Amino acid sequence: MAVGGGHGGPAAPAAFDVPSGAPAGAAPEPGDPRLARLSLNQKTVDNWSLPEAVQGCLRAGIGAIGLWREPAAETGIARSARLVREAGLRVSSYCRGGFLTGYDRTAALEENRRAIDEAAELGAPCLVMVVGGLPEGDRDLVGARARMAEAVAELAPYAAERGVCLALEALHPMFCADRAVLSTLGQALDIAELFPVGQVGVVVDTYHVWWDPRVYQEIARAGERIASFQVCDWVLPLPADPLLGRGMVGDGHADIPALHRAVDAAGYTGDIEVEIFNADVWAADPDAVLATVTRRHVHHLA
Amino acid sequence: MAVGGGHGGPAAPAAFDVPSGAPAGAAPEPGDPRLARLSLNQKTVDNWSLPEAVQGCLRAGIGAIGLWREPAAETGIARSARLVREAGLRVSSYCRGGFLTGYDRTAALEENRRAIDEAAELGAPCLVMVVGGLPEGDRDLVGARARMAEAVAELAPYAAERGVCLALEALHPMFCADRAVLSTLGQALDIAELFPVGQVGVVVDTYHVWWDPRVYQEIARAGERIASFQVCDWVLPLPADPLLGRGMVGDGHADIPALHRAVDAAGYTGDIEVEIFNADVWAADPDAVLATVTRRHVHHLA
Repeated sequence: MAVGGGHGGPAAPAAFDVPSGAPAGAAPEPGDPRLARLSLNQKTVDNWSLPEAVQGCLRAGIGAIGLWREPAAETGIARSARLVREAGLRVSSYCRGGFLTGYDRTAALEENRRAIDEAAELGAPCLVMVVGGLPEGDRDLVGARARMAEAVAELAPYAAERGVCLALEALHPMFCADRAVLSTLGQALDIAELFPVGQVGVVVDTYHVWWDPRVYQEIARAGERIASFQVCDWVLPLPADPLLGRGMVGDGHADIPALHRAVDAAGYTGDIEVEIFNADVWAADPDAVLATVTRRHVHHLA
Repeated sequence: MAVGGGHGGPAAPAAFDVPSGAPAGAAPEPGDPRLARLSLNQKTVDNWSLPEAVQGCLRAGIGAIGLWREPAAETGIARSARLVREAGLRVSSYCRGGFLTGYDRTAALEENRRAIDEAAELGAPCLVMVVGGLPEGDRDLVGARARMAEAVAELAPYAAERGVCLALEALHPMFCADRAVLSTLGQALDIAELFPVGQVGVVVDTYHVWWDPRVYQEIARAGERIASFQVCDWVLPLPADPLLGRGMVGDGHADIPALHRAVDAAGYTGDIEVEIFNADVWAADPDAVLATVTRRHVHHLA
C-alpha cells in the first residue's frame, strides 16, 4: 500500500509493524522518557554486527543493550566494551553462559569462566545462564539438574569476585531435553537462594514463564533476585525450529503487561530487554524492527 | 532385510519396531502376566474403528482399552459398551471432556454432561478432561483458569452420581495457549483436592509432566487422586504439528520407568495406558504398533 502525501506538505514515512506488516504509527522519538528502561537484546537484530547494533540503538533512542558472546568476539571484547561505553549505552546483560549438564565438567567450567571475564570487561551486570539439556542418550533428569546446581556453586564466587551476577534462566519446558533442564522460575530460585543476593539471580523471560500457574508467586518471591527481565511473546503455531518461535510483544498470548507489573511490584527497576528469536524478524530491515520494538514498548510496557 | 528360516523349521516372522523400523524380538504372548496392567488408548491406533481396536487388543493380549468419543459415537455407545464387555476388556478411561475456558459456559457444560453419560454407559471409571486454552484474542490466563475451575465444580457432582471420576489432565505447557490452561500436576491437584476423592482426580501423563522439577513430589501428593496413568515418550525434534510429537515408550528422553515407580509408590495399582499421537505410528500397520507397544511395556514398565 502506498502511503501518499497530499498537496502542501511532506508525506509522513510509511511505517509498518514487523513482522506482521500491519500499518503502524510513528515510532517514539529518541529521548522519549517512556523509552527509559528499554533495552535491545542483540539477538533481536541478529544480522547486525555489534557496532551496527550500537548505532541502531542510538538512532532508535534505545539506551541499553544486551550483548551476545559471538558478535562480541567478532568485534573483539575490548573494542566492543569501548564502543558501548562511548555510545553511552548501558549493558543490561551478557548472553550467555551455561551448558553445565554434560559430563565434561572441567571444560564447561573453563568456558564459563571465560564468559564471566568477558561480561566483566564489557560492564555487563549479569551473565545469562542457559544451563543445558540432557546429555545424548541420558534420561537422568534429576542427575543432570544436580550437576547443573553443583557447577553453579563452583562458578558463583568466581563471578562475584568480578562483579558479575549469574542470572539463571528457566527455559520453557519444551526445551528441557535439549537446552535447559532449568524449567521454572521456582526451580531457578531454589538454586539462587543458596547464594548471596547479587551473586546468583534469575532471569524472568516472559516467553519462558508466562504459562506457569505459580509465576506471580515466584516473581514476588524473586524480589531482588531478578537480575534480568526479558520480554517477547508466545505466538502460534510453533515454527519448524521451535527456537525461532518468539513473537513481538503484543502479537501473542502472553499477558506481558501483567508480568511486567508483577516484576516491578517485586522491586525490579532495571532494564526491560527485548529478545526475539524469529526468522521473520531477522529477515526484516533491522531499523524497522527497532521501530516496532519501541512502539510496542511504549504501548505495552511504559 | 529378510529374516529367513533355515532348514528344518518354520521361520519366525520378522518383527520390526514401530516407528523406528529397528529389528525387534518377538512380542510377548497373550496371557503373559507382564501384560496384566497394559491398556491401549484408542488414539494409538487412530485408523482403527472401535470394533477393530477391540479385536486388536484381543490378538495382542491387551486386557484394557482407553476409549475416545468420536470412534465410540461412530460405532454407537450402546454397541461399543457391549463389544468391550463381551470381549472382556476393562475400560481404563474415556477421552475426553473439557474445553471449559470459553465464555459459552452453558454449551460447554451440556457437552460435558453428555460425555459423562457416555462414560457411565461404557463403564469407564473416569472421563479425561482437557480443559481448554485461552479464548481467541484473550490473554487473561488467570481468568481462564478460574472459569475452568468453576466449571469443574459444576460438573463434579453430576459425574459422581453416575460413578464417573473427572480426571483433570495437565497438558505440557507448550499447549497452554491453545489446548489446556492446566499446565502442571500441582495445579491439577490444587483443584482436585477441593472435591471428594473419586469425584475429581488427575491424569499423570508422562509426556506432559516428565520435565516438571516438582513431578515426584506432586505424584506422591496425588496418591489416590491418580485416576489415570498414561505413557508415551518425549521425542525430538517436535513435528510441524506439535500435537503429533509423541514417541513410543523408550524412544525418547522421559524417564518413564522412574515415573512409573513413583506412581506405583503413590498407591496406584490401575492400568498403564499407552497413548501415542504420532503420524508415523498412525501410518504403520496397527498390529505392528501393538506388538511394539507390548514389547516396550514388558521392557520398560512390567
